[in-house]
Amino acid sequence: MKIAFIGLGNMGGPMALNLHKAGHEVRGVDLSAAACDKCRAEGLPIAPSAAAAVEGTDAVISMLPASQHVEALFLGADGLLGRLPAGTLLIDSSTIAAATSRKLAEAGDARGVAVLDAPVSGGTGGAVAGTLTFMVGGEAPVLERARPLLEKMGANIFHAGGAGAGQTAKICNNMLLGVLMIGTAEALALGVANGLDPQVLSEIMRRSSGGNWALEKYNPMPGVMQTAPAARGYAGGFGTDLMLKDLGLAQESATAVKAATPLGGLARNLYAAHSLAGHGALDFSSILRLVQPPPRKG
Amino acid sequence: MKIAFIGLGNMGGPMALNLHKAGHEVRGVDLSAAACDKCRAEGLPIAPSAAAAVEGTDAVISMLPASQHVEALFLGADGLLGRLPAGTLLIDSSTIAAATSRKLAEAGDARGVAVLDAPVSGGTGGAVAGTLTFMVGGEAPVLERARPLLEKMGANIFHAGGAGAGQTAKICNNMLLGVLMIGTAEALALGVANGLDPQVLSEIMRRSSGGNWALEKYNPMPGVMQTAPAARGYAGGFGTDLMLKDLGLAQESATAVKAATPLGGLARNLYAAHSLAGHGALDFSSILRLVQPPPRKG
Amino acid sequence: MKIAFIGLGNMGGPMALNLHKAGHEVRGVDLSAAACDKCRAEGLPIAPSAAAAVEGTDAVISMLPASQHVEALFLGADGLLGRLPAGTLLIDSSTIAAATSRKLAEAGDARGVAVLDAPVSGGTGGAVAGTLTFMVGGEAPVLERARPLLEKMGANIFHAGGAGAGQTAKICNNMLLGVLMIGTAEALALGVANGLDPQVLSEIMRRSSGGNWALEKYNPMPGVMQTAPAARGYAGGFGTDLMLKDLGLAQESATAVKAATPLGGLARNLYAAHSLAGHGALDFSSILRLVQPPPRKG
Amino acid sequence: MKIAFIGLGNMGGPMALNLHKAGHEVRGVDLSAAACDKCRAEGLPIAPSAAAAVEGTDAVISMLPASQHVEALFLGADGLLGRLPAGTLLIDSSTIAAATSRKLAEAGDARGVAVLDAPVSGGTGGAVAGTLTFMVGGEAPVLERARPLLEKMGANIFHAGGAGAGQTAKICNNMLLGVLMIGTAEALALGVANGLDPQVLSEIMRRSSGGNWALEKYNPMPGVMQTAPAARGYAGGFGTDLMLKDLGLAQESATAVKAATPLGGLARNLYAAHSLAGHGALDFSSILRLVQPPPRKG
Repeated sequence: MKIAFIGLGNMGGPMALNLHKAGHEVRGVDLSAAACDKCRAEGLPIAPSAAAAVEGTDAVISMLPASQHVEALFLGADGLLGRLPAGTLLIDSSTIAAATSRKLAEAGDARGVAVLDAPVSGGTGGAVAGTLTFMVGGEAPVLERARPLLEKMGANIFHAGGAGAGQTAKICNNMLLGVLMIGTAEALALGVANGLDPQVLSEIMRRSSGGNWALEKYNPMPGVMQTAPAARGYAGGFGTDLMLKDLGLAQESATAVKAATPLGGLARNLYAAHSLAGHGALDFSSILRLVQPPPRKG
Repeated sequence: MKIAFIGLGNMGGPMALNLHKAGHEVRGVDLSAAACDKCRAEGLPIAPSAAAAVEGTDAVISMLPASQHVEALFLGADGLLGRLPAGTLLIDSSTIAAATSRKLAEAGDARGVAVLDAPVSGGTGGAVAGTLTFMVGGEAPVLERARPLLEKMGANIFHAGGAGAGQTAKICNNMLLGVLMIGTAEALALGVANGLDPQVLSEIMRRSSGGNWALEKYNPMPGVMQTAPAARGYAGGFGTDLMLKDLGLAQESATAVKAATPLGGLARNLYAAHSLAGHGALDFSSILRLVQPPPRKG
Repeated sequence: MKIAFIGLGNMGGPMALNLHKAGHEVRGVDLSAAACDKCRAEGLPIAPSAAAAVEGTDAVISMLPASQHVEALFLGADGLLGRLPAGTLLIDSSTIAAATSRKLAEAGDARGVAVLDAPVSGGTGGAVAGTLTFMVGGEAPVLERARPLLEKMGANIFHAGGAGAGQTAKICNNMLLGVLMIGTAEALALGVANGLDPQVLSEIMRRSSGGNWALEKYNPMPGVMQTAPAARGYAGGFGTDLMLKDLGLAQESATAVKAATPLGGLARNLYAAHSLAGHGALDFSSILRLVQPPPRKG
Repeated sequence: MKIAFIGLGNMGGPMALNLHKAGHEVRGVDLSAAACDKCRAEGLPIAPSAAAAVEGTDAVISMLPASQHVEALFLGADGLLGRLPAGTLLIDSSTIAAATSRKLAEAGDARGVAVLDAPVSGGTGGAVAGTLTFMVGGEAPVLERARPLLEKMGANIFHAGGAGAGQTAKICNNMLLGVLMIGTAEALALGVANGLDPQVLSEIMRRSSGGNWALEKYNPMPGVMQTAPAARGYAGGFGTDLMLKDLGLAQESATAVKAATPLGGLARNLYAAHSLAGHGALDFSSILRLVQPPPRKG
């Protein structure tokens, strides 16, 4: 199967390489020469342009930063969609507005191109290891066509519903994650301020009704979990600014459908304050510092 | 072992009965004649007064509504503490301010009475089944003395730290639980408003980074989980007003130590609005209705 | 001066009539026949289409519901902007995204059409009385050309800055208003729950550091201010759903520039919950009911 | 009239001096020798102890930091209240819990001592200038007895209601003030991030429906208002930690009466985060920095 992979950044690069290593004929492309070079060095064939990349392919996979990039690439008068023959499979793994995903699916439909929105979670670690989670929106038979490709890049593949549903599922999940993380940080900071040992409190809550993914896998308090970003000064992981972007998409979605999400909205604004304070590049679990600043040096 | 059990309400009654059934010599007492009658009907010996109940006992267990009841019962000029011989074990399972628990522990210390704060989670179901979780504050050797009793009433016993630490652990856990529940309700309501199936979305988030106790055991969306209060109109379970009380204790604690808990504070105030709207007696997962009101009748 | 007025709803209709009564040659147009009929009955000439309305005019004023309506009307391949001769003055009084206003101004610039964004506050009462407040974005000399027209419709005209600045100023103001109103409602409800007379408390806070527009002009507590919507069951005034729209625009703006607005974000989500509860058509001061529900009938 | 003034801190000292300068026979007392020395240097007679200060006085005025200090001073077995003859006037100007004020009033009532709670606003500047605002709880005739004294220290005297009502009014006002200030800071920061001039935006909102005390007297944005603390690096004024204390009292009150104050609760927690970040001693308008941090030095 011939595949064009558009967008070779921290996520897209390793994903394309996993497909390549699995024996697919992949051509990658990215506006950044550095990103192309990095993948080329690992053996990935690079196309000179997106138009060249998609020529003669059976499937196109895209991994781009935001809605406007997806729109600019595929839609419009001379968008890439116009170059894809009927029957092509288009998998967009970008995390973007569900409305944009639906627009892309409709435009694909009009040309006989089968479109899936398939945003991922799992971070750069999951992209490299091929253990990403895909949340997929689109028709079930199209997902079955795509499944062999997705399985090369991810460990969990969820069918969320029709076009755009993958985006909605991801946004709902990440909004909840943002809330869980701040709530967990607050509870730990409150306990520590009252003299509790954070390790003991973490273990109690993890096994009680406060149990959640952050306590299980990603404890925000330094010293509790050696595998978490908190153990290495919040370097790596899932950046504050990426969480801020997803929480912004959630509020955009809530505004569009007149939904009420008081904690989700507050989470977005607290992450914004955290980013403004200079922590945008730290892992999102560093939000602990908002409620428990590190000791200042005398 | 002779035990006086003070407070035979929805939680205390079944707890006392579990001790009685396990072969301990328990005398129960409660200001409410109805509560006493109910336990007597199941075979529990009832004492005419708290003073009579504690005469000659080795251990006293109390399960009372709030800080002021614990203070009024045990402390003060003619408090019950004055009637307990040195060496008595006093386990207070009420959910109250950590400061009150510490005061009780100090007063006990001065008289040679060994005091534990041991608030529980698990609800009335857990009290009847003997599967409660105890979060215990106090000295480790005292907890070891108490353990055989606690094991008759609960399935999990956590040692949180010194005097008051049990209260703090419970308050931190329940603050986090209040946040988890609202966050989960918001995420589900946002997904449904965007056309997702709540069952599908629940399953995706449960297995992803949004995973938490509410999705695992206590889904707030009617129709998703047959064992949850949502399946029976939010009857039974852990009432909104009880969650509101615990979130109030958390804010009281945050104020005392100058901690910042923005989501925990908002959760308290949203539960207060929910209670004011007339839902105080419904299970706390009914907070879903704040973000997804049931359809109004035409 | 010949003027085309596009959008004759509850705001636009009275505004057009005020220009007409002041002696300007105004032609109105609206997609709704009922809106046209209402204005025609008061003497306003009605054009058969927007294209007909703008033929030969010196100025075009638009008052439309949302960004997409403004874009659809003026921009695009066959947008109305293409029919306006160089030198035309275009005043858009719709409350829309600042980004859309900037796009319109750029498109106008390219054709020699002078564009202002001039959203209003003051409600339908101000529109009828000609006492609106205009918050204007655009070049100062263009505002001077427009001023004689604006003065027929409004009492206060503020120059906020360049293109889009009028929208930003309005959105900032209305976000603050949403926060003031909820904050005032909370303070009054807290005082009343503690036994204070709302009239006395209102007067104290109005004259102290809690003083704000809501206490001065628009007290949300029934019984305190006879001229406020609270005195007539929250009928009329500035509807909850309109406030919700403006708070959504504010969050959209905050997301676009990565600003942090925790109270503004919470205000949006509380208004969303209030709307979901069935109060979208009530005046926005009815948010008091979220924190002080009316007594239920036995 | 002979007056004992207990508590000669930043507020109490100038208040006592104003009474002294107005010709009253005042004896001051404070646990801090420095505070006593400062007042003595300005001519105020200092008593060696509170007991000595109240001997033979007609009126006692107290200005203490928190509820526990008022309780410890006046109530309890050997409290100062026991030394006051029937007919004494007791004015407590501390900002404390309304419940404590009511307890003091009841204890006074039992001994024939007429008690008022009379917390103030206006800051240290108002204390020195004698322009404080008093919010008074207690019987109207008692307030009339006290009025000649209060008028020496303040410019506005409000009768809020019965015992404790002065505290409630102050707490409601300051909760609203905390909300106004953050809301104003957010609106200004959002406007500036969108390119608006803060001076222009401040003026527009001040004269529109966003108008409030912060925009009128106390603009939080540096460069807009030369008389505000923002103009001097947020030095002086009303400290963040004092606002945090008042917002904590408001949440305590909301918890006690089961009131819902979502914005008030969030304001408390944002001020707590601001204080934890090291800004507790800055004026409370420095909360602007949470949403618009000062540029970091390269």
